[in-house]
Amino acid sequence: MLKRVDVRYTVNPEDISIKNPIFIEGLPGIGHVGKLVADHLVKELKTEKIVEIYSHHFPPQVMVKDDGTISIPKNEIYAYKSEGESPDLLILVGDFQSISNEGHFELVNTYIDIAKKFNTKRIFTLGGYGIGKLVEEPYVLGAANKKELVEELKQYGVKFEEGEPGGGIIGASGLLLGVAMLEGIDAASLMGVTSGYMVDPKSAKAVLEVLMKILKLEVSLEALNERAKEMEKLIAQIKELQESTMQQWKGEEDLRYFR
Amino acid sequence: MLKRVDVRYTVNPEDISIKNPIFIEGLPGIGHVGKLVADHLVKELKTEKIVEIYSHHFPPQVMVKDDGTISIPKNEIYAYKSEGESPDLLILVGDFQSISNEGHFELVNTYIDIAKKFNTKRIFTLGGYGIGKLVEEPYVLGAANKKELVEELKQYGVKFEEGEPGGGIIGASGLLLGVAMLEGIDAASLMGVTSGYMVDPKSAKAVLEVLMKILKLEVSLEALNERAKEMEKLIAQIKELQESTMQQWKGEEDLRYFR
Amino acid sequence: MLKRVDVRYTVNPEDISIKNPIFIEGLPGIGHVGKLVADHLVKELKTEKIVEIYSHHFPPQVMVKDDGTISIPKNEIYAYKSEGESPDLLILVGDFQSISNEGHFELVNTYIDIAKKFNTKRIFTLGGYGIGKLVEEPYVLGAANKKELVEELKQYGVKFEEGEPGGGIIGASGLLLGVAMLEGIDAASLMGVTSGYMVDPKSAKAVLEVLMKILKLEVSLEALNERAKEMEKLIAQIKELQESTMQQWKGEEDLRYFR
Amino acid sequence: MLKRVDVRYTVNPEDISIKNPIFIEGLPGIGHVGKLVADHLVKELKTEKIVEIYSHHFPPQVMVKDDGTISIPKNEIYAYKSEGESPDLLILVGDFQSISNEGHFELVNTYIDIAKKFNTKRIFTLGGYGIGKLVEEPYVLGAANKKELVEELKQYGVKFEEGEPGGGIIGASGLLLGVAMLEGIDAASLMGVTSGYMVDPKSAKAVLEVLMKILKLEVSLEALNERAKEMEKLIAQIKELQESTMQQWKGEEDLRYFR
Repeated sequence: MLKRVDVRYTVNPEDISIKNPIFIEGLPGIGHVGKLVADHLVKELKTEKIVEIYSHHFPPQVMVKDDGTISIPKNEIYAYKSEGESPDLLILVGDFQSISNEGHFELVNTYIDIAKKFNTKRIFTLGGYGIGKLVEEPYVLGAANKKELVEELKQYGVKFEEGEPGGGIIGASGLLLGVAMLEGIDAASLMGVTSGYMVDPKSAKAVLEVLMKILKLEVSLEALNERAKEMEKLIAQIKELQESTMQQWKGEEDLRYFR
Repeated sequence: MLKRVDVRYTVNPEDISIKNPIFIEGLPGIGHVGKLVADHLVKELKTEKIVEIYSHHFPPQVMVKDDGTISIPKNEIYAYKSEGESPDLLILVGDFQSISNEGHFELVNTYIDIAKKFNTKRIFTLGGYGIGKLVEEPYVLGAANKKELVEELKQYGVKFEEGEPGGGIIGASGLLLGVAMLEGIDAASLMGVTSGYMVDPKSAKAVLEVLMKILKLEVSLEALNERAKEMEKLIAQIKELQESTMQQWKGEEDLRYFR
Repeated sequence: MLKRVDVRYTVNPEDISIKNPIFIEGLPGIGHVGKLVADHLVKELKTEKIVEIYSHHFPPQVMVKDDGTISIPKNEIYAYKSEGESPDLLILVGDFQSISNEGHFELVNTYIDIAKKFNTKRIFTLGGYGIGKLVEEPYVLGAANKKELVEELKQYGVKFEEGEPGGGIIGASGLLLGVAMLEGIDAASLMGVTSGYMVDPKSAKAVLEVLMKILKLEVSLEALNERAKEMEKLIAQIKELQESTMQQWKGEEDLRYFR
Repeated sequence: MLKRVDVRYTVNPEDISIKNPIFIEGLPGIGHVGKLVADHLVKELKTEKIVEIYSHHFPPQVMVKDDGTISIPKNEIYAYKSEGESPDLLILVGDFQSISNEGHFELVNTYIDIAKKFNTKRIFTLGGYGIGKLVEEPYVLGAANKKELVEELKQYGVKFEEGEPGGGIIGASGLLLGVAMLEGIDAASLMGVTSGYMVDPKSAKAVLEVLMKILKLEVSLEALNERAKEMEKLIAQIKELQESTMQQWKGEEDLRYFR
């Protein structure tokens, strides 16, 4: 049975030795900047998957992989046990965000629960900030749930511009900051400015560089372009196929009413 | 964890010394007349915030303030301890109403619960009544959940016109009257006639003047025009930015399905 | 507090002396045929209101009456204690049906609960069957949840035509038949053929005449035309006003997101 | 009372003597391929209905049969007790899939519960894969929740093509594979390639032939064409009528708000 929000540890929580980890969120969103950075971290660092999250708020479907096996929509949390100067990390990645409004709240409650279980004192949510035109020199726009954190982030080159982002921060990246605030956890959003029209590795690089400075972390950026290209190709392909499938499924909607 | 409707007292309820307060609602709505009046009261009177209400029925996002910190959608209740002839007040203000139909009912249930907790015997909901053209001399249209209250309000110049408002009263301003009726609490809606096209300080002034007479309350009207202008500017700006953000987010919807 | 489906007896159930009543449903629907017939019965017969049903599945608004007082969306059940040959009746009328899909199921569950509480053995649901063109000689189309009932109704002139209504019976009128079937209660739908373009007193008359024969009931038809005209006028007026209000409310939607 | 998902055994579960059955799903979907195959199996084999499933997630309506009686939307499970070489079967058929996203998850949870109750070790979900053009030689595309199953199915001529179906598998056919995977049950989807424009008996035949080989089952294919034609006729007729009914119901929506 799959619960509305279904948290499954893939490792015994007691065997996870990370301490006071920083929680990093990189789910799909504008320009896939956040997802690109978080996926990159998971692959470049020596991480271990510790949690899978399934939910009725994800789309009711499965994806088919190249080898003919399927995967069901999920979010995943990876743990990184630092061997150097950087803090330990929990990295939240996934295929989807909630497709319902209420679902966002239920999922963010769950993320916060897990962060608290591991004694997380700080959260970074990663995303893109689309400005609708090409960006030559991407930079990182910030927002935080505490004044001191704003000041701290400015020292790392994060920009805070009056009235930006004007429309607020929608989805998990935003809500996590809000709910964390109510729970007394520091949290900030790092948004790479991007056109919003495509997967943007330059914007991701800007976010990653800031994040590395903040976390005192060393990660190779080499694979980032490659990864973005793959993601772009996959998206184009999937979009095309998805549209045709969706259209058929929609066309079939009357027929679903057929007895 | 944020509950579906999450009531958080910012003051120990036992330390709140108001007696038999009148409950006033001024959430966003047509012409923002109600919000303008209620926000004005909160600022002009010596009020204290006593409750914050969060909810899964508000939009799943946070807003970013000018200093780079965020705020999460919420409603707030302020208490006013009268020092003069007027009754004590509870004033409900907020950024949002429910974005789902069912959410309106759950939130109104909560407002009524709080009103009852403080022994409220009368509720006024404030709003605008849009007529789709400019209004030279705005007046206040009324509706009440009790015949006697209709008669009483007429004496303060509130108009009751047959068949108006024909479409009923939608959202919290309306439902509060209905649920209060079932709970035996007197309630009336005071609706400033307005074009409905912009934030309308003239209409708000009309509502405020009636309300002051009813409540035997003195409040300076000076800042009202200024406040309306600020609100108008903010709305214009936010609307523009919001639309672009929304469009991007919508454009990204297929991508959210990307694994 | 208003529950999701909130049943309130206006009379002590133990004081209601009806026996094995027939349950009649006449909520708003195609051509308002069912509503017209049921409202007519409630007014022409010596009925007593025994139950009010409120619900989160009705629209979140109140209606304003001509005297300035409001009413909140509800369904009502009236009891008719027969003094003649006819059986006792429970008549379900109301302003609205559920505005959500799931709500229909929850409300119908409630109607069936109440019917069972009073030992109802038979249900008639009243409605219109729209054919998209003017109907000179309206007749009554039937559907039932039991073969024997089909045969019985044929004797009263109710038509059963293969493949009609092809689209099934949508909403409370249909679901009541289905859920009653699972509960072992006989139930049939009587649908007056109508254009579907307006409130149709001729179609209502056809349904009423059949119903009177079935129930051995005498009711004056005189007021039916008058009632339909009033209903038509009200609908036209409300529709116009509602559209303008709705448009404004919709136009305000961005603003609801304004903090 | 009808529960959100309401499972009703029509036979005492203890009297059902099947052993380790294969679970087969054939609900409405693209080209109605899955429904056609599953309905065919139910009729050609000596099956017994053992379960009816009702749900708030099905459309709130009833269908009217040719004899004037109604049926309420439901899914059904039939048991087949093998007399030959083949395994025992549980066959899931029905009029509808969930009309809400969340409903798909709740219903699939229920299907899996029932499969587990009977000790099912393997599930096949049947469907169509629409390619938007006529298919001369339909074949069967597969997807499975386990690598070994992919290999096994290839031996029966099931095709696994990289990137197909690109859009994933939507609805019960897909989710069943995903939830089964989490429960440790082998499951595969067999999708007949089809245009997607009509009920496709050729595609159904392709699926049925593969399924018969896998299950070591003998079923006459004779009636398949006939059955598809009937289904096609019914769909055309229902679609036409449904559209007109729907339009009327939609047109009535304002009126539903009429008091």
